Amino acid sequence: MAQQKKPNTMWGGHFSKAPDQIMQEINASISFDKNLYKEDIKGSIAHSKMLAKQNIITQTEAEEIAKGLNHIEGEIDSGIFQFSEALEDIHMNIESRLKEIIGDVAGKLHTARSRNDQVITDFRLFVRTTNNQIISLITGLINSLIKKAESNIDTILPGYTHLQVAQPVSLAHHFMAYVEMLGRDISRFEDSNNRLDESPLGVAALAGTSFPIDRDFTANELGFSKPTENSLDTVSDRDFALDLLSNSSICMSHLSRLSEEIVLWMSQSFKFITLSDAYTTGSSIMPQKRNPDAAELIRGKTGRVYGNLITLLTVMKALPLAYSKDLQEDKEPVFDSSNTIIIALKVASAMVDDMKINDDNMLNATNTGFITATDLADYLVREFKIPFRNAHHITGKIVKLAEEKKCGLDEIKLEELQKIEPKINNDIYQILKTENSLNTRSSYGGTSPKTVTEAIIRAKNKYNN
Amino acid sequence: MAQQKKPNTMWGGHFSKAPDQIMQEINASISFDKNLYKEDIKGSIAHSKMLAKQNIITQTEAEEIAKGLNHIEGEIDSGIFQFSEALEDIHMNIESRLKEIIGDVAGKLHTARSRNDQVITDFRLFVRTTNNQIISLITGLINSLIKKAESNIDTILPGYTHLQVAQPVSLAHHFMAYVEMLGRDISRFEDSNNRLDESPLGVAALAGTSFPIDRDFTANELGFSKPTENSLDTVSDRDFALDLLSNSSICMSHLSRLSEEIVLWMSQSFKFITLSDAYTTGSSIMPQKRNPDAAELIRGKTGRVYGNLITLLTVMKALPLAYSKDLQEDKEPVFDSSNTIIIALKVASAMVDDMKINDDNMLNATNTGFITATDLADYLVREFKIPFRNAHHITGKIVKLAEEKKCGLDEIKLEELQKIEPKINNDIYQILKTENSLNTRSSYGGTSPKTVTEAIIRAKNKYNN
Amino acid sequence: MAQQKKPNTMWGGHFSKAPDQIMQEINASISFDKNLYKEDIKGSIAHSKMLAKQNIITQTEAEEIAKGLNHIEGEIDSGIFQFSEALEDIHMNIESRLKEIIGDVAGKLHTARSRNDQVITDFRLFVRTTNNQIISLITGLINSLIKKAESNIDTILPGYTHLQVAQPVSLAHHFMAYVEMLGRDISRFEDSNNRLDESPLGVAALAGTSFPIDRDFTANELGFSKPTENSLDTVSDRDFALDLLSNSSICMSHLSRLSEEIVLWMSQSFKFITLSDAYTTGSSIMPQKRNPDAAELIRGKTGRVYGNLITLLTVMKALPLAYSKDLQEDKEPVFDSSNTIIIALKVASAMVDDMKINDDNMLNATNTGFITATDLADYLVREFKIPFRNAHHITGKIVKLAEEKKCGLDEIKLEELQKIEPKINNDIYQILKTENSLNTRSSYGGTSPKTVTEAIIRAKNKYNN
Amino acid sequence: MAQQKKPNTMWGGHFSKAPDQIMQEINASISFDKNLYKEDIKGSIAHSKMLAKQNIITQTEAEEIAKGLNHIEGEIDSGIFQFSEALEDIHMNIESRLKEIIGDVAGKLHTARSRNDQVITDFRLFVRTTNNQIISLITGLINSLIKKAESNIDTILPGYTHLQVAQPVSLAHHFMAYVEMLGRDISRFEDSNNRLDESPLGVAALAGTSFPIDRDFTANELGFSKPTENSLDTVSDRDFALDLLSNSSICMSHLSRLSEEIVLWMSQSFKFITLSDAYTTGSSIMPQKRNPDAAELIRGKTGRVYGNLITLLTVMKALPLAYSKDLQEDKEPVFDSSNTIIIALKVASAMVDDMKINDDNMLNATNTGFITATDLADYLVREFKIPFRNAHHITGKIVKLAEEKKCGLDEIKLEELQKIEPKINNDIYQILKTENSLNTRSSYGGTSPKTVTEAIIRAKNKYNN
Repeated sequence: MAQQKKPNTMWGGHFSKAPDQIMQEINASISFDKNLYKEDIKGSIAHSKMLAKQNIITQTEAEEIAKGLNHIEGEIDSGIFQFSEALEDIHMNIESRLKEIIGDVAGKLHTARSRNDQVITDFRLFVRTTNNQIISLITGLINSLIKKAESNIDTILPGYTHLQVAQPVSLAHHFMAYVEMLGRDISRFEDSNNRLDESPLGVAALAGTSFPIDRDFTANELGFSKPTENSLDTVSDRDFALDLLSNSSICMSHLSRLSEEIVLWMSQSFKFITLSDAYTTGSSIMPQKRNPDAAELIRGKTGRVYGNLITLLTVMKALPLAYSKDLQEDKEPVFDSSNTIIIALKVASAMVDDMKINDDNMLNATNTGFITATDLADYLVREFKIPFRNAHHITGKIVKLAEEKKCGLDEIKLEELQKIEPKINNDIYQILKTENSLNTRSSYGGTSPKTVTEAIIRAKNKYNN
Repeated sequence: MAQQKKPNTMWGGHFSKAPDQIMQEINASISFDKNLYKEDIKGSIAHSKMLAKQNIITQTEAEEIAKGLNHIEGEIDSGIFQFSEALEDIHMNIESRLKEIIGDVAGKLHTARSRNDQVITDFRLFVRTTNNQIISLITGLINSLIKKAESNIDTILPGYTHLQVAQPVSLAHHFMAYVEMLGRDISRFEDSNNRLDESPLGVAALAGTSFPIDRDFTANELGFSKPTENSLDTVSDRDFALDLLSNSSICMSHLSRLSEEIVLWMSQSFKFITLSDAYTTGSSIMPQKRNPDAAELIRGKTGRVYGNLITLLTVMKALPLAYSKDLQEDKEPVFDSSNTIIIALKVASAMVDDMKINDDNMLNATNTGFITATDLADYLVREFKIPFRNAHHITGKIVKLAEEKKCGLDEIKLEELQKIEPKINNDIYQILKTENSLNTRSSYGGTSPKTVTEAIIRAKNKYNN
Repeated sequence: MAQQKKPNTMWGGHFSKAPDQIMQEINASISFDKNLYKEDIKGSIAHSKMLAKQNIITQTEAEEIAKGLNHIEGEIDSGIFQFSEALEDIHMNIESRLKEIIGDVAGKLHTARSRNDQVITDFRLFVRTTNNQIISLITGLINSLIKKAESNIDTILPGYTHLQVAQPVSLAHHFMAYVEMLGRDISRFEDSNNRLDESPLGVAALAGTSFPIDRDFTANELGFSKPTENSLDTVSDRDFALDLLSNSSICMSHLSRLSEEIVLWMSQSFKFITLSDAYTTGSSIMPQKRNPDAAELIRGKTGRVYGNLITLLTVMKALPLAYSKDLQEDKEPVFDSSNTIIIALKVASAMVDDMKINDDNMLNATNTGFITATDLADYLVREFKIPFRNAHHITGKIVKLAEEKKCGLDEIKLEELQKIEPKINNDIYQILKTENSLNTRSSYGGTSPKTVTEAIIRAKNKYNN
Repeated sequence: MAQQKKPNTMWGGHFSKAPDQIMQEINASISFDKNLYKEDIKGSIAHSKMLAKQNIITQTEAEEIAKGLNHIEGEIDSGIFQFSEALEDIHMNIESRLKEIIGDVAGKLHTARSRNDQVITDFRLFVRTTNNQIISLITGLINSLIKKAESNIDTILPGYTHLQVAQPVSLAHHFMAYVEMLGRDISRFEDSNNRLDESPLGVAALAGTSFPIDRDFTANELGFSKPTENSLDTVSDRDFALDLLSNSSICMSHLSRLSEEIVLWMSQSFKFITLSDAYTTGSSIMPQKRNPDAAELIRGKTGRVYGNLITLLTVMKALPLAYSKDLQEDKEPVFDSSNTIIIALKVASAMVDDMKINDDNMLNATNTGFITATDLADYLVREFKIPFRNAHHITGKIVKLAEEKKCGLDEIKLEELQKIEPKINNDIYQILKTENSLNTRSSYGGTSPKTVTEAIIRAKNKYNN
């Protein structure tokens, strides 16, 4: 049984017994925090360099430590490192191996620091890198969308509200709507990286240290602007992880909308787009199927990203200061949401690139739903100074007539229209044309090809496309 | 590049290209659904047995298939099976291997079924087993609590409301409160297992099948009471998974409360209990620490179980019938919540068993907060027919006096008490004793040793302790 | 300022000051718990009746109290009751008014009980009633669906997987899928009502009471099977509320799916159904719009029901025993989810009743997507004993050919088919007919008109339609 | 019945029937969006001013409209305005009343806009104001904390990890930890306000408008830096609401931690602080209670703020462009979270101000748990160059000895210490003093009075205290 085992050599000085097997199992984090080995080694080298600079250890000792750590990084890179659950976490695994390699001097590395500031340093480094990676992938998706927009400025599809045909829009304009959403996503990840730009290293367990350390030095080594302000806050703060999780949730809500549209547009009832074999899959029973699995998976994976946010929010609720072990539950949701959003962004870009537009189907779909009714109402206002509400009412009557006659608005004869509103003249048939409708919507941010072209230019400048 | 690869051999008949690498990566579920291999093989054997019984395949073919599948189970058991991401999932991996072993007859196994009913069969079998395992572990924790209660009927601790000392209670009574919570948890998992007791096998892709299958036969083989009623519902239903996730969430809320109390009771300010070295850990910097990590981890892991529930609820939102690929996101949250609640229950039982009670500290803690004030009020009502509200008011005044004098209620002299309420007599000093207070609370469900003893007997009968 | 106010007369005996204004504002629950006035009065009358039976108060006192309470109920019913925030909650508001009406005897009502068991009694009564109301409304929706199914057994629409046309199904079968989901919902609410069927009244603040009360009597008066088992658990348990919230979440996930389909089916690309003016709305700018707002709102309201579940799960996390004020946050999420699911069920029933089916559009939509490809594969297996995997592969090739020729499967000439698989004969053109496809899927739970008719009969028997 | 009613006069031109009663009930938002009346009127006045400037309406018409709207604002302010559910929302209610007051010219106001851009303008204005209000209240709480910190620089309490006594810290340092958390909260709300600083007015229903509007003018009138970029995005974007909800969730996680500590510190086992009668409440049954209800309520209300975030994230999942009615579910969670965080911040500030510190109890609590063990280990490293791991091990042995002897570390005789580590000398007894421990932790961000004093000065400069 586990009881015969010896206490943990790292912290077990006053313990007579080792943890129970089940305790070790629930307690160990090595299965997931080994992902942080590069950050851990980077942090330890910076720390030992600083200890030497401050004469807390010798220069030689610092070099020995760095050499040992670099060696370990190589071992982990190449997959030969033996991880041990009994050593609990990545920090202990590395330090224990360091002792095997360089002997007792390894024990000096942990001077003036604690696992509490060590883990938070590793994790902040990881989140900072991940935020940047996500920003870069969002930019990639933006550029895919801009490119698709550029070649579809004159492609007309029905704009929907309530999934009902509403007004004709440019497909480019539709893609550029996602560029706006994703641009806000980038700003969120950037803001978060600004907020986490403080080095935790050196706050020790919770209260700071009595060693004459130089936190500005390690901050600088690790690329942070400055050290954190308060040791108690530093070891118990997981805001930067919550930021990543909530930013990812909002971003996934955008990707889920794009995915929903891909699924709709791929359906036989819409047939607005086609995805190639590379981004669809077949059925084990229905030999004809071409399923938009990738889009469905992004949409579905929105769930786990929302779930991970709730996970960490729940963990943080009502946790007294400073460090509590509950905080160990911070990493898995962050790793999972990071991995998920990274693959979702890659797949979304690939699908946008891959997407074949069926222009004719899109255009045909504008021939339903009296899509230019608003243009009719606006024409009544503009030409005859009829108050909008009255114009809206008159148009409603004309729509009703068309419904009864089962015809389009432009198929109603002028005399019938004039029975409803005598001022109407022959100009109306121009107004009711889809292309004309589109061209007139040239207010800033509107869908006319001209305004959309300008919007694309602005976006290209912004994203260096 | 991936483009050169050949289409999936299982469903790629009309595909000219294989999935893109990134598509394959997001699409494949083998990394997690391999957990279902035993269920998958069990389901396939039942299915082929039925096909033979119905003369859809021959008896010999069914036997070959079963033999092959059993062989594969052995391969997976022993770790020599080679899983392939290109084959996407556990079903395709097994069927593809089956073909290698038994040749073309393997292709007959998938007659009259689809991956859609196959996966849901596997998953229901898994969830049913897991529900039972959870029920058994909850029962284990209940028995640990009952045992601890039995030996602490006369241990007195302060009952709290608002974490303020309120009235003295028996520690056994406190433990038995958790027995009640956990008893409700068991009933939830049992109800869910009753609800999932229908066999999905045979609904095929979404619409049933034209083969003359016998769904009652496979239901019976797999231990289900009957086949499901509606094929469209069956392939798109994940209620049984939501049930597991919400039951686990409620159960974890209970375990988080127990954990919170263990953390509080282990603190130096309470010192109500001690956990042994086997269930505490040390600090890498503070050599004196004995941290209740296990309790903190259970409390923290509550977050992920809540998160997993949100994950699947989000997935299910607004999904049109029948099967959509989003549903593939059902398994990981279930696996994660299952694993979490299983280890949490094991660790909670172990901690309850391990827990050393510091009776004296508990009893001392009852000497603060005027813990018998309610008894005083009740005495005024009972003995002198003073309406409760007035008695409450009188007692309030006496408490205020004690606060001012910085003494206990029983240290106020009779004449001073009588200045506030002349009817009070010497009996009051008996009333104010903690043990007497406890003994009098003998209403059904109350904390008197007598009622608690009876409650323990009832619980032991219920849980076969 | 608030400081001059007098302490609360109900509990302020030892307080020198009243709560601060902002404290009163955050603390008071009267704005929402006044919903519970009927339950509160019912509970109080049962309690006073029991007190009299046990000779704790006199029969006359009990009658006076009951009379006063009935009077107050009338006042609240008629809207003339003056609620006071200073009196915090419904319990104090009623008791304070009772004192005005019947004088000091009102003070006897609170003998042997506490607000802790009082509020939980009220709330359980409310949740029990609400569960029953929800069950009844779900049954109503089920009956609407069954009725619509009955008149659409022979209506054919494409069954979808991945929103791709998959196999033809009966519209009745589609509606009956929702009957299955909703049937599970009913069983969840029923299970929960079984679980809450214990009376909390008499557990007092947390520990039981020293008065010789009869909890079986009050349980019986209030329609509970028995009293709760453990006083500490009883005052701190909100499982019955979590049950309602999670049951409602799962049920809303079902309604969101139905709503999604209504939105899709109403779109101009599908046009499968029409909703009347009574269940659609117009646009303030687009005079032609007919928006399925009701379906969208149900779909959207799924969010708040999920949110309310997270609300209470978060509240319960890590709350030590027994009562904490956090528990006051239990009511608003329950009221909100109850109101939401009640209106959602009513609106869903009304929409199902109102829905006009456009059979032709549904049928036309089956003429895309090679909807009978599975039938072709099954035919190859059945007629020529080709292993399913091979048959699937052959069918894949035929589908590819049809795609290239841009024609339906049944438009390919026999000789061309035979080039792919020589065994194919003229029977195949029967197999490829949509109606035939449907008729053959007669496995239990399948979509053939025969099996669907039987399923409807079973459902009608179950729900007494 | 509702059927007799007339269609909505605002959009019902082509409708023959009015909405059903239950439809109207689920559809109407006036019950909550009336909160936006000031924003709605402000937006309408800016819009009509722009219409006049662009000669779309006359100057006189714009003035009439503004006058009418101002009149309506007065009516709503004074409570005499009659809201109508049949008119659905605040926009229709106001416009309908405007027509009553100024006649047909009211119908011109809705020229070149839609409810879609109108509602989003109102809501953005509301969220912007609310963000600023929250920032101001957080600053208020920060200042309360700084003030309390200033007067408690030399107050010593045990710093905890795992709720176990770890190292002594300054109470000021503890309060300043919350100042850091709240400072990050401010930056989140500021970032969000920067992100929402774009005017939606003029994007119309979804596609822009053909009227020659000037969106820069209305942006400027409403205090936005510029108009939004894309009409489709604008009407379907709720990111700014998600930002508020997630920022509030993170902020509430901080307040829940403060509240948890208040609850712990108020308990009889800690007795670190006392709250006055103004911020505690009593019990209806236990006359001696003084409950920290306000802190518990903030902790509990964390749940609803988390829940509201999930509500809107769920709503947004998989919603196709552009506007869908689901989006109407955006307001209630925002109103609820806003109200909650506003009162929570007010109450938290008031509690911090009100809090009486029991210095002696805090100091006494440092005399447990061998709180200076880390100092001992650091001393061994610093003085004798013993590697930290060895020093940690030696200290562990000394702690174990003290545990066995049931004495403090400073009560062990020198010779006994020297048996464990011969280098130890008499200096050790200074090292083991709590105050000395505190003073030495002077690394940046550490707890020494000197570093804390500097941190307070920095914070005062930052927050203009």
